[in-house]
Amino acid sequence: MNNNWKKIAASLLAVALLIPSLAVLGNNENQAQASATKSDVTIKKVVEERGAKIPKYIFLFIGDGMSYPQVQATSYYLGTTANDGDVVAEELNFMNFPVAGSAQTYDSTSFCPDSASTATSISTGNKTYSGVINMDTTLTKEYETIAEKLKKQLGYNIGVVSSVNLNHATPAAFYAHQSSRNNYYEIGLELIESNFDYFAGGALKSTTGSKKDQKVLYVLAEEAGYEVVKTQKEAEELTAKDGKAIVIAETLADSDAISYDIDAKAGEWRLADYVEKGIEVLNTNKEGFFMMVEGGKIDWACHANDAASTIQDTVAFSNAVDEAIEFYNKYPKDTLIIVTGDHETGGLTIGFAGTNYDTYLTNIENQKISYAKYDSEYVTNYKKNNANFVEVLYDIEKNFGLVPESKASSAKASTLVLTDYEYDRLYDAYLMTMNNTDKLTEEEYVLYGSYEPLTVTITHILNNKSGIDFSSYSHTGVPVPVFAIGNGAELFDGYYDNTDIYKNIVDLTKVK
Amino acid sequence: MNNNWKKIAASLLAVALLIPSLAVLGNNENQAQASATKSDVTIKKVVEERGAKIPKYIFLFIGDGMSYPQVQATSYYLGTTANDGDVVAEELNFMNFPVAGSAQTYDSTSFCPDSASTATSISTGNKTYSGVINMDTTLTKEYETIAEKLKKQLGYNIGVVSSVNLNHATPAAFYAHQSSRNNYYEIGLELIESNFDYFAGGALKSTTGSKKDQKVLYVLAEEAGYEVVKTQKEAEELTAKDGKAIVIAETLADSDAISYDIDAKAGEWRLADYVEKGIEVLNTNKEGFFMMVEGGKIDWACHANDAASTIQDTVAFSNAVDEAIEFYNKYPKDTLIIVTGDHETGGLTIGFAGTNYDTYLTNIENQKISYAKYDSEYVTNYKKNNANFVEVLYDIEKNFGLVPESKASSAKASTLVLTDYEYDRLYDAYLMTMNNTDKLTEEEYVLYGSYEPLTVTITHILNNKSGIDFSSYSHTGVPVPVFAIGNGAELFDGYYDNTDIYKNIVDLTKVK
Repeated sequence: MNNNWKKIAASLLAVALLIPSLAVLGNNENQAQASATKSDVTIKKVVEERGAKIPKYIFLFIGDGMSYPQVQATSYYLGTTANDGDVVAEELNFMNFPVAGSAQTYDSTSFCPDSASTATSISTGNKTYSGVINMDTTLTKEYETIAEKLKKQLGYNIGVVSSVNLNHATPAAFYAHQSSRNNYYEIGLELIESNFDYFAGGALKSTTGSKKDQKVLYVLAEEAGYEVVKTQKEAEELTAKDGKAIVIAETLADSDAISYDIDAKAGEWRLADYVEKGIEVLNTNKEGFFMMVEGGKIDWACHANDAASTIQDTVAFSNAVDEAIEFYNKYPKDTLIIVTGDHETGGLTIGFAGTNYDTYLTNIENQKISYAKYDSEYVTNYKKNNANFVEVLYDIEKNFGLVPESKASSAKASTLVLTDYEYDRLYDAYLMTMNNTDKLTEEEYVLYGSYEPLTVTITHILNNKSGIDFSSYSHTGVPVPVFAIGNGAELFDGYYDNTDIYKNIVDLTKVK
Repeated sequence: MNNNWKKIAASLLAVALLIPSLAVLGNNENQAQASATKSDVTIKKVVEERGAKIPKYIFLFIGDGMSYPQVQATSYYLGTTANDGDVVAEELNFMNFPVAGSAQTYDSTSFCPDSASTATSISTGNKTYSGVINMDTTLTKEYETIAEKLKKQLGYNIGVVSSVNLNHATPAAFYAHQSSRNNYYEIGLELIESNFDYFAGGALKSTTGSKKDQKVLYVLAEEAGYEVVKTQKEAEELTAKDGKAIVIAETLADSDAISYDIDAKAGEWRLADYVEKGIEVLNTNKEGFFMMVEGGKIDWACHANDAASTIQDTVAFSNAVDEAIEFYNKYPKDTLIIVTGDHETGGLTIGFAGTNYDTYLTNIENQKISYAKYDSEYVTNYKKNNANFVEVLYDIEKNFGLVPESKASSAKASTLVLTDYEYDRLYDAYLMTMNNTDKLTEEEYVLYGSYEPLTVTITHILNNKSGIDFSSYSHTGVPVPVFAIGNGAELFDGYYDNTDIYKNIVDLTKVK
């Protein structure tokens, strides 16, 4: 995994850049900064009054489904794979931020909340039901989001970046107000109405509405003055002069999201590239900007209990944070970076009953593609061609490095030999997948969830052989870390509710 | 669960007491405090130099096996049981501390470390192998502990309190130096040699050595001037005038630890009582004191995957912290309270594949006794009397509120009906237990670990019906929270290594 070394080097560089600037935290001198020049008097006044105390540049990174287990597992994976399997941790850049608080995440429905309600909490300071975006529990009152307030009241440029669809729950929670997160078309209309300055990431869902009879969202966006860009070349050439923009990934993967990082081709734009471009086009007015960046596929990988893809997408997320750190190093007194998750997904644990006190995280390197790509490129064909188990085992060896006992002697050194118990589980799962069983027993549901039995069993076996386990296909109730650096970071210390993230930003920026 | 209400009231009171005093944090006035009066000039000088900047009173609470999942699960359990099953969180007192950082816990052996090495990290700032207490990885060099330094260099009184054996790994790491945590007798000798002022909790292990041919540790302790107290009445009557003391719980439970909180009888001393007495007897010299308090049975309950006992012991731990908070409220500028864990145990998750996004934490109230008490009071008899499954089911209903489908109509409302799948798992486990099977298959090991198959299956079923799951019988690799309040608390913000806990205390107290 040569690519990993590049990522590690990038992380180390970011941390190195970070160290000298850590000293800036706690430095409370009110050095005057270039303040508002816009004609809007209200904006000017607030900014002048608070001077450098208002963070002019606010980055809010949300790792969807990313909590302590995802962060620490990635850190340990990077450390041990870079050191021949030794027990070494390699901190992700944001783990070195001076502030690292905790936020509890429950919503009005459950201790295991969803992304719509948790993003509503972060974006508006209100708890609501799972599935609801910026509306109250009576589904009648709309909440104005922090991004809307910052744009209207302080004139900030606003960016919304996500590795998944731009009208998916988390990004939507910064500009939309809907009783259901599934109102994708209506959310898309609100995206256009928001007049926000930069959207980038996965494609819009339901571009012509649930009945496919509405005007295409992209056309509406262009009519509203958006530059809509769908190729990487155009994205690279985009400048602030193009005005407000919607950048859609050229390569679309599962559900029209950007590729899992583990599947991305050389040169393909990753989350960090969309953030870098965002900084370039948003940093053009004197008032400042707010950018929300979602690492959305960490969540998707955890739902599927795919540890390898989870870890790689957490690295990609961390690389995106590097872009903000680089910016922070230029404007440390004006910048605030917050890195958090919205909830934990999958009940990931670094430890498994079968491996006791040991972990073998380097085994995860054996996985070459995401569960989703394996589904679409292999499992679909198995079903079409009624593939036999021997053919399937060949692909499993190639993509996940797992071989049956019978082939152990001829396999290469890094390959992992299946125990009889694992082999039997795999064969059972193969039969379930090939039979397209849709009615699962209680036991089968725990084993496979709503995923392809074969694929999820492969990742379960590889996870377990690495000393990793998942307990759920849904979200769980552990709190999330809140890392912060820069102007106002100290407010994010402590153990609090996720609604306090919003409240702290309001306190800092004095929006109403 | 009437008892719970008392605990909740106590927690709420503690938080109420805490709120006005939170404002003290960040107040850096160097108000002079009564400083050293001891003849030792070095001690006097350091204390005078730093004045109120040195925390005179340091509490270090370690919830063994307690990480984010244990803390948050307990908080959610208390909230929902106090509110008719609604989705409400009830914060534990320390969750409201102004500082809440994170510490990663890996040791020189594994990302899933043990209590000996992690306590060594906290106590001396050094990583070492699992199982090693305050010695380096060559097993030749001994490390002096923070407690020893504070006693020798600053004249602090020292207290060591634990709900498990006083020569178990965590307490031992504050006074002993051994290549193996299993050297219980030698650790006991070091306990006596430490000359520390107050030990309290579970009984000493191996009091006459591994060959049972050594002089009884308690006798040696008395000869060395310790007041050794083994009844609650004597413990209650203990005063500082009695000099240095060893207080052993009158009621000893599994492995001679104090009772699980869920099993404790009315009036029986809990962890909080040992802490209250400790404060009374330690707070007698001008130099100050350091008290380490371990909630050791949180870990034991998590090893056994017993969620109910885990939660109740976390509440007991929190109640013990209340005692320190009460003290802090009297001496806010001189006191530092640190509350942390040494590692996570069990891979506890608030969420389970079979319950998706739902939890039913009130179901946990159905459990009336710990797994350990069920083992000793019931399972032992089943084996002796070759009990049939019907008798066993009767006890399971009484103690865990689980009934088979056939008895569902006659059972009381709160009782939980076993699905066919659960019933079958229970029956299989009953057979395993009755057959005393000692050679487990790979699948059986994941199902039962080294626990009684029947008992661990009962708690697994009840956990899962509550929306809770465990992934391991060992420790796992998620980081632990570090809550802090008082003099120097701000040093504990951020995400760092557990060795930094020691380093921060050294920085604050200027010991060498």
